[in-house]
Amino acid sequence: MDTRQTLRAHCTQHLETLRAEGRYREFARLEKIAGRFPRYRWHQPGAGPGAAREITVWSSNDYLGMGTHPAVRQATIEAIHAHGAGAGGTRNISGTSPLHAELEAELAGWHGKPAALLFGSGYMANQAALLALLAALPGMQVFSDAMNHASMIDGMRRSPAKRHIWRHNDLAHLEELLRAADPAAPKMIAFESVYSMEGDVAPLHAICDLADRYDAITYCDEVHAVGLYGPSGAGIAERDGAAARIDVIEGTLAKGVGVVGGYVAAGADWVDYIRSTAGGLIFTTALPPPNVAAALASIRHIRTDGALRGRMMQRAAALKAALDAAGLPRLPSASHIVPIPVPGADRCRGVARRLLEEFGLYVTAINYPTVPRGTERLRLCATPFHDDAMVAELVRALGAVLRVAEAA
Amino acid sequence: MDTRQTLRAHCTQHLETLRAEGRYREFARLEKIAGRFPRYRWHQPGAGPGAAREITVWSSNDYLGMGTHPAVRQATIEAIHAHGAGAGGTRNISGTSPLHAELEAELAGWHGKPAALLFGSGYMANQAALLALLAALPGMQVFSDAMNHASMIDGMRRSPAKRHIWRHNDLAHLEELLRAADPAAPKMIAFESVYSMEGDVAPLHAICDLADRYDAITYCDEVHAVGLYGPSGAGIAERDGAAARIDVIEGTLAKGVGVVGGYVAAGADWVDYIRSTAGGLIFTTALPPPNVAAALASIRHIRTDGALRGRMMQRAAALKAALDAAGLPRLPSASHIVPIPVPGADRCRGVARRLLEEFGLYVTAINYPTVPRGTERLRLCATPFHDDAMVAELVRALGAVLRVAEAA
Ligand SMILES: Cc1ncc(COP(=O)(O)O)c(C=O)c1O
Ligand SMILES: Cc1ncc(COP(=O)(O)O)c(C=O)c1O
Repeated sequence: MDTRQTLRAHCTQHLETLRAEGRYREFARLEKIAGRFPRYRWHQPGAGPGAAREITVWSSNDYLGMGTHPAVRQATIEAIHAHGAGAGGTRNISGTSPLHAELEAELAGWHGKPAALLFGSGYMANQAALLALLAALPGMQVFSDAMNHASMIDGMRRSPAKRHIWRHNDLAHLEELLRAADPAAPKMIAFESVYSMEGDVAPLHAICDLADRYDAITYCDEVHAVGLYGPSGAGIAERDGAAARIDVIEGTLAKGVGVVGGYVAAGADWVDYIRSTAGGLIFTTALPPPNVAAALASIRHIRTDGALRGRMMQRAAALKAALDAAGLPRLPSASHIVPIPVPGADRCRGVARRLLEEFGLYVTAINYPTVPRGTERLRLCATPFHDDAMVAELVRALGAVLRVAEAA
Repeated sequence: MDTRQTLRAHCTQHLETLRAEGRYREFARLEKIAGRFPRYRWHQPGAGPGAAREITVWSSNDYLGMGTHPAVRQATIEAIHAHGAGAGGTRNISGTSPLHAELEAELAGWHGKPAALLFGSGYMANQAALLALLAALPGMQVFSDAMNHASMIDGMRRSPAKRHIWRHNDLAHLEELLRAADPAAPKMIAFESVYSMEGDVAPLHAICDLADRYDAITYCDEVHAVGLYGPSGAGIAERDGAAARIDVIEGTLAKGVGVVGGYVAAGADWVDYIRSTAGGLIFTTALPPPNVAAALASIRHIRTDGALRGRMMQRAAALKAALDAAGLPRLPSASHIVPIPVPGADRCRGVARRLLEEFGLYVTAINYPTVPRGTERLRLCATPFHDDAMVAELVRALGAVLRVAEAA
């Protein structure tokens, strides 16, 4: 065999399959317009920079628009002047600045935990922390919600732990699995608070009740809740008064916080153990000081600005009401995430393409493997900056495009 | 059993073992001083901010000091104003800006490859790309240098590929393993160009000769070479005229380039395949535009500034000569990395601590698991900004501390 030719042929053929199934992803080039979030310039494929077109983005995870907040920009600029653009080393090899320690203390305080640990991303945080904890005790078993994020699955799969998958948010099923498991085995229940593709919310207290009953520790991904829920924006655990019952809270700095990076918050020994053993922390360059400073400024703002959170919830409610009034379908969502079902990968991508090309509205089509085949959807998020006119424009366009898509 | 108590006890005990073995890592808090790299402020444990002490850092991987280059700072500031602090989404969900596409094109051009793909870090790039490629063909076998980085090992281990480990830079052993393997199996040889803890350099052409003879594809981590070697700084493959013979070049934006992020450069179909299948790319937020802009400005500068590279090599040569003249031990290094052997984890950490506390010199002690037990070392890197006085100061201090450590 010729390895190079065979591999290239495999790649080409796989890409053709993706295209044939309507699952080939092209990354739209979207340029934020300073100070006018959620307005962007869309750089169309093949066209020169002059051909960029102004559009509205409905699928940003910069949920609060904090990425363009003046305090966040200012903190970045100060840090770039004081510290430069990079950390210059891993956390252990000259890459830990006082800002890193400050942000970790801030995150711990925010989540009401003794300690927190930064990672390069939420992905790395999940992967590394789950692997470290699940590999710690022999015979560990993990009970994982069926809709848990790829980064959690990644960490669980690489660990030696036996993995049980409970049907999404189905606590009867979770209990059935817990009851059937060896009572002597150490256990973890791993779940999210807000599920990004469904927009639904996990019943944290009920999960913790089961954890108590069956002697399991709890690991909760609050990636889509951090900044958005609870009196200080620490997440659903804060909102529900459940933070003390959750052993490990994992979050991101890239969505509600508007920057980049991930973390876990937990007991001091646990965090020190993960810090001391996780390859995904030890063997990679630390986050740059400007990003750390930006996240710190963002969180300090978020903790006190309940009005911003209120406005986001109000915009999400307005979007849902407008969709309902127009008779447009949507999945039942208990959060700021509003999924519109458009089954069929080709159809879903076609709808998104028409919204962009004909109406100047960017909405991401979500298809397999992010969601199961047949459950393709558009995923909308209203931010505090999506005003009534934008909502009306979106609903009109969706109505037009979905009716045509149905008729076709 | 009580899972929570058992896990906590395990963590505590593991941390105690690390302490007993002298391997417990405390991250020194080091603050770069604007415009005076490699001078930093060291914030001592427990002391207030006022107690920070000015020191010289000898273990930064910001090899060229590009992190504080004015063009890099300027690009960051422009991007933070234009785009804000975060990408706001994964590459597929509104997180691809024109800057991302521009940087990918720049990286491809730099390495002389048809395409390149950005990741959040070099760690993610290795992990995701190796996994994607090794899982692509059934029966794949990978031949891995014994000193390959943890991120490469991570990607290889998670793949279904059978892994053969050849003794570090020992091509006779590599050939022995290749010859013994099934001739019909698709194969990859995975290696680095500059080895970070040894400072030695792989014989790229000789490895590619074996790859040709035994029908293997080649994957080379140039993380510690990018920016530093070759006429335009693209790495050892460029310097040796071997880039066209290497199928996948992997690099980081966090060391020579001075920012953060990682990438692979390869054939267009391969890159598109990795882009379309790698979980570590699809399921994580894209790099923030300010970091991307900073990396782009840094690379554009690096490509044309051969004098900066020359000065770095000259400083490394001066450091080596001064160590030799003082009769101090060092590992034979063919690169800018200068390891000083100080066997014994406790002894090595003790030497590093004395250099910092008594002489104001920060040098990282490298111990297990980063290097094998018994081969502990200090890892020095001279940058263009370590002047003659700094070299003389370091050599004097090292002489004093090492002689005392020996006598003890
Ligand atoms: C539930 C969940 N967890 C973790 C992540 C990863 O976070 P990050 O983007 O910071 O890598 C994501 C999305 O990106 C997510 O949706
Ligand atoms: C050889 C090698 N490859 C990859 C990496 C990871 O790169 P990054 O720091 O960008 O994650 C490192 C060090 O951090 C390294 O030494």
